[in-house]
Amino acid sequence: MGFWKSIFRVFGTTEPTKKNRLRPVPNQNGQIFFSTDRDIDVYELEELCDAVGWSRRPIRKVRKAIQHSFIVISMWEKRGTYSRLIGFARATSDHAFNATLWDVVVHPEYQGKGLGKALMKETIKSLRQADISNISLFADAHVVEFYRQLGFSPDPEGIKGMFWYPP
Amino acid sequence: MGFWKSIFRVFGTTEPTKKNRLRPVPNQNGQIFFSTDRDIDVYELEELCDAVGWSRRPIRKVRKAIQHSFIVISMWEKRGTYSRLIGFARATSDHAFNATLWDVVVHPEYQGKGLGKALMKETIKSLRQADISNISLFADAHVVEFYRQLGFSPDPEGIKGMFWYPP
Ligand SMILES: CC(C)(COP(=O)(O)OP(=O)(O)OC[C@H]1O[C@@H](n2cnc3c(N)ncnc32)[C@H](O)[C@@H]1OP(=O)(O)O)[C@@H](O)C(=O)NCCC(=O)NCCS
Ligand SMILES: CC(C)(COP(=O)(O)OP(=O)(O)OC[C@H]1O[C@@H](n2cnc3c(N)ncnc32)[C@H](O)[C@@H]1OP(=O)(O)O)[C@@H](O)C(=O)NCCC(=O)NCCS
Repeated sequence: MGFWKSIFRVFGTTEPTKKNRLRPVPNQNGQIFFSTDRDIDVYELEELCDAVGWSRRPIRKVRKAIQHSFIVISMWEKRGTYSRLIGFARATSDHAFNATLWDVVVHPEYQGKGLGKALMKETIKSLRQADISNISLFADAHVVEFYRQLGFSPDPEGIKGMFWYPP
Repeated sequence: MGFWKSIFRVFGTTEPTKKNRLRPVPNQNGQIFFSTDRDIDVYELEELCDAVGWSRRPIRKVRKAIQHSFIVISMWEKRGTYSRLIGFARATSDHAFNATLWDVVVHPEYQGKGLGKALMKETIKSLRQADISNISLFADAHVVEFYRQLGFSPDPEGIKGMFWYPP
């Protein structure tokens, strides 16, 4: 399929050689790749989200959300011919001013190795390349520190994130 | 043009008769209408944003943002054959789970009359009709109360709105 082609097209290399921290995965043969291909297996994605305890979502809706996201970044571990989805992030956007991140996740077996940071840096880089200046997100309480280290500020100038609940 | 046709198509009526609070505008002859037409005059929109003190934005980008917003709601005062843009809101979305509101504004001459509330209700109604369950926004500190009255909660379950700043 167009999967590896898309990776090469977007990231221009098959080996993230300059980013050594992208390889502290258990098996030394494993290599980490990023892709912006939207043609990902949504069942595999939902398994990833399931692994971090998120509730299951209708597959049809997940597919629609991916299709209508401005950017979709997936992170893969490649061992030989086998690739495993180990991370994911996507952003909605108006294609001009702002983008908002959703569904940022790294598989529990791969957490704490700098991969979440690498995934976020790829995402931010892509958004900046697309000339988006206003990058926002809604962080769960326990990951505010993770995002702060990446340059995100909570409530800048008193701006409050708000969610609507049906009356 | 397709302007009034679009209003009629979307809201199904030329007279918001059931919403009397939609008419407490200075001139009794004026009537308030909503439209979801994207074909609005971006210069008129930027004038509206200017009137509340927002900084000017490149017209080309405003046009692109409108085009790529999931929903665009404009509010108009109609007097005879003349229509004036007096309010605006738009939302980005993944078309499946979540929508985020941006650029919510009511012209200063029309503020404090319930029109901001009416505009927000139309926006929420449209998003709900599109089966969006997760409606979010980033509120400036001084309008948190305005949104709270409409059913929005700040930081629900400790979720924090965050913005990225270049290092
Ligand atoms: C949040 C998440 C994406 C982080 O991924 P990760 O691969 O574990 O993060 P990294 O290893 O790249 O960590 C980068 C830095 O952030 C820190 N960090 C990671 N998770 C953190 C957390 N929950 N709280 C505070 N700091 C955290 C790390 O200590 C590391 O700091 P260092 O550079 O000083 O060593 C991942 O833990 C995850 O998927 N969690 C479950 C899903 C989730 O909650 N997503 C966010 C929803 S808003
Ligand atoms: C915020 C804004 C859209 C509100 O529009 P509006 O037409 O003045 O609001 P309404 O008259 O419909 O007010 C609805 C209710 O909210 C209250 N309210 C309005 N503005 C408020 C504010 N800034 N702070 C607290 N409460 C407010 C009103 O008192 C009213 O309450 P009531 O129903 O109990 O009488 C408008 O003031 C505006 O455009 N401001 C400048 C732009 C801006 O800051 N936008 C938000 C960016 S996040």
